[in-house]
Amino acid sequence: MNLLVSRECQAEDSIVRVGEIAFGDGSFPVIAGPCSVESEEQLMACAEVIAESGGALLRGGAFKPRTSPYEFQGLGEEGLRLLVLARERFGLGVVTEVMAESEIAMVASYADLLQVGARNMQNYPLLRALGKCGKPVLLKRGLSATLKEWMMAAEYILANGNPDVILCERGIRSFDSHTRNVLDIASVPAMQEMTHLPVVVDPSHATGRRSLIAPLAKASLAVGADGLLVECHPNPDKAWSDGAQSLDLNQFRDMMAMLPSRILKS
Amino acid sequence: MNLLVSRECQAEDSIVRVGEIAFGDGSFPVIAGPCSVESEEQLMACAEVIAESGGALLRGGAFKPRTSPYEFQGLGEEGLRLLVLARERFGLGVVTEVMAESEIAMVASYADLLQVGARNMQNYPLLRALGKCGKPVLLKRGLSATLKEWMMAAEYILANGNPDVILCERGIRSFDSHTRNVLDIASVPAMQEMTHLPVVVDPSHATGRRSLIAPLAKASLAVGADGLLVECHPNPDKAWSDGAQSLDLNQFRDMMAMLPSRILKS
Amino acid sequence: MNLLVSRECQAEDSIVRVGEIAFGDGSFPVIAGPCSVESEEQLMACAEVIAESGGALLRGGAFKPRTSPYEFQGLGEEGLRLLVLARERFGLGVVTEVMAESEIAMVASYADLLQVGARNMQNYPLLRALGKCGKPVLLKRGLSATLKEWMMAAEYILANGNPDVILCERGIRSFDSHTRNVLDIASVPAMQEMTHLPVVVDPSHATGRRSLIAPLAKASLAVGADGLLVECHPNPDKAWSDGAQSLDLNQFRDMMAMLPSRILKS
Amino acid sequence: MNLLVSRECQAEDSIVRVGEIAFGDGSFPVIAGPCSVESEEQLMACAEVIAESGGALLRGGAFKPRTSPYEFQGLGEEGLRLLVLARERFGLGVVTEVMAESEIAMVASYADLLQVGARNMQNYPLLRALGKCGKPVLLKRGLSATLKEWMMAAEYILANGNPDVILCERGIRSFDSHTRNVLDIASVPAMQEMTHLPVVVDPSHATGRRSLIAPLAKASLAVGADGLLVECHPNPDKAWSDGAQSLDLNQFRDMMAMLPSRILKS
Repeated sequence: MNLLVSRECQAEDSIVRVGEIAFGDGSFPVIAGPCSVESEEQLMACAEVIAESGGALLRGGAFKPRTSPYEFQGLGEEGLRLLVLARERFGLGVVTEVMAESEIAMVASYADLLQVGARNMQNYPLLRALGKCGKPVLLKRGLSATLKEWMMAAEYILANGNPDVILCERGIRSFDSHTRNVLDIASVPAMQEMTHLPVVVDPSHATGRRSLIAPLAKASLAVGADGLLVECHPNPDKAWSDGAQSLDLNQFRDMMAMLPSRILKS
Repeated sequence: MNLLVSRECQAEDSIVRVGEIAFGDGSFPVIAGPCSVESEEQLMACAEVIAESGGALLRGGAFKPRTSPYEFQGLGEEGLRLLVLARERFGLGVVTEVMAESEIAMVASYADLLQVGARNMQNYPLLRALGKCGKPVLLKRGLSATLKEWMMAAEYILANGNPDVILCERGIRSFDSHTRNVLDIASVPAMQEMTHLPVVVDPSHATGRRSLIAPLAKASLAVGADGLLVECHPNPDKAWSDGAQSLDLNQFRDMMAMLPSRILKS
Repeated sequence: MNLLVSRECQAEDSIVRVGEIAFGDGSFPVIAGPCSVESEEQLMACAEVIAESGGALLRGGAFKPRTSPYEFQGLGEEGLRLLVLARERFGLGVVTEVMAESEIAMVASYADLLQVGARNMQNYPLLRALGKCGKPVLLKRGLSATLKEWMMAAEYILANGNPDVILCERGIRSFDSHTRNVLDIASVPAMQEMTHLPVVVDPSHATGRRSLIAPLAKASLAVGADGLLVECHPNPDKAWSDGAQSLDLNQFRDMMAMLPSRILKS
Repeated sequence: MNLLVSRECQAEDSIVRVGEIAFGDGSFPVIAGPCSVESEEQLMACAEVIAESGGALLRGGAFKPRTSPYEFQGLGEEGLRLLVLARERFGLGVVTEVMAESEIAMVASYADLLQVGARNMQNYPLLRALGKCGKPVLLKRGLSATLKEWMMAAEYILANGNPDVILCERGIRSFDSHTRNVLDIASVPAMQEMTHLPVVVDPSHATGRRSLIAPLAKASLAVGADGLLVECHPNPDKAWSDGAQSLDLNQFRDMMAMLPSRILKS
């Protein structure tokens, strides 16, 4: 039996739409925003620059999976309300993570694209429920997931009724602590050979280093990725999470200036 | 602030009791059983030999996290009923995996020790809920989890009210496909230095190869582990999952014969 | 003390010249050729297409490090003579691997750029001797070398008197067998931050899969690499080594057609 | 064709003799000594305790492969003379590393067992020359070598005429910096299934942490290893290299006291 996600099952590229934004049609939409939603002021500052610079969607964490139980766990539903407020003001669709099956309906009532984090890539009850949630899903690759396991995780969502899955390469765990993870850029064309789903790249989590994000964004575009996910923050040094890998808003503007607002992949 | 799981917080070893079985008191209890509960006949055949050979607890999967949505996903609650039947017949406490927050109460009504699988080690909503479940928890190390991340995952359970956590080293992902994973045996004394929680070893998942299980069981005892988790099956070649790494029942008896029924660690 | 290879020691980019070809001046020279020199016919067929397509240098293995002692070990000095013949006919400088200190003088009498393979990145007697060889050196990253170890390997060459080192990212060993290795593309800008030496990329060894080479070549250019190293062969399916990762000559032409003959990095 | 190192070629265990010490006969010889030979006083202090405690052979580095060219590179031939002096005084055979083909004859004129370090496991000219050196060879596993690659490296030595190879598992590179490397203890029985050569374990390099050496030594014995290699030093905090992973001489005595002087593997 051919997998639903496979090219054998569907030869042509899937186009996944999030409002007016399309992933997989040859364009290169940029999803951006802070790691965590911290305050109205912080979020609106990001959203304004993202919208002005040609960003496609606004991301922000409201329910945060954190290694320690004593780290900031996100603003919860209040964070979602702020994201919706930003959407109303700046016209950017909202992307946010959902961690628990029991929270899907609530999160889906606010967000336009539901993110599954790397730690949950093989949380099968969550994936099954997302198959029935009625919203597109952004499925991050697990820290040590093979390409086959990643495809199979997507298959859980499609097999439960939801064809709208965007894959996100965000780096794999390796031996060198110089970068937080290793961006497996070859996974982009390798997955595109095997599956019809769009594949975007997150250079922020892949490297954990601000200075590497712009070069990797250019490489992601060149390799044929279907979009980008980057973290930005009005004041990265004061960010409540992931500051070291967040662009400040000027750096974000500069990066976007390098990338045409409506890029057709070669 | 010291972590609840740390030696700084509690110098003496924690003893986690599952019925009459103690983990962390210097003994070496053996948890055994099939990967998946398949049928009454299969499960009782295992349980009989485990009880006769001095095994401490019976494990069996009823809700199975499987890479593909098209693989056997476990018998579900029917599997749990069979595990309870085996407990009644052979006096072995029951260990089984719980994958979803919404199933904890139901699984806990059958099982004596709740297992968190490697894929869910950082499923924080699940860990938080297990902090309030009233049953001891067996927390497997994630495939690419650092020791610190593993400790922090346990901390989620303790911080939510449940001190009864047993850690399980089950191999980490590495580059050589000769074995399924690499048993990081040094993690046992390393974790015992940092935490007061008991640490058991699962050589079945660590290697994926039947012939390596007995030598690794001996090594686990020698290194100072607080117990063992092994897969066995009446007919491994016909097992619905993980046959290659399951001992048959004679091999299980032979392995147990090497290990005194009540072993005191040196 | 600052390392000789570091930006602290020399802020501006080093330009390493191999005949008329420069690495590190903002251009993107392409080194190409077969994994092993097999015959005059095979090598001249490659060299002709490489020269016509705007390739910069001809690579070919004459002394081959092979995992098994029973695999083809290269034509030896006869292979070097064929490389020189190709240089005379097509005007391409010659790149080839040197494996042993005792062979450096002989190999250097034929080649224009001496390659240190991944397996020898920490062969310090070899590196020391290359510091005194009078020819530029192409230093491949070891399969599990950290960036710091790779820099230190280059430092051995510079500290022994040879400033002309080109670094080559060729993929690191990881857990997924889908590709032969994982191209750590972030290592290019990360190394360029820390060192003034040019960094080129070898997508052939990085992936082991022909179909991924062209997308990775484009990504390497976009990320700011100082050149490319690719394998090509007139008949990859009959290649004596590494056929699966060699482009055929039409594929090589197509890849070169995408890359301007004299590319200035953005 | 069956490999010379394989069980298909030779079913019974090879016994490799280094003077009166045998590896592979069911005993568990302990090789010990400092990482680097630093002085006569340091070396004799080690050798005396090793001999008294039942150690089998004295190791010490005279030619040291060091990540940085500016680190101590060993005393060279003077170090070898000190090792021979210790042999004369304490009756312990001498084990030391050889890094270069050109130094084999000289090193072999002093040492009883020639060590190939992890960085040189695939230095084929060195391996070929060791096939003709007339001395037994201790072949360490490379940092990211598969079991098959390790066997093939040994095959280079046997195929060149030297049957006396002892394999040494010394940990593989992985993602967690808590330990220096990950001891792949399953490689011991896995290699013993595939090859007739003896396999010893080096817990010092495997962990880089003094406190983990004794538990891993016990585990190595229990898993069926054919011997042990450990670092010790009269004053580890002042060691010129690898102090953090060296036992002091009292710790070494204590570890040996746990291990019978003539152990038969179970």
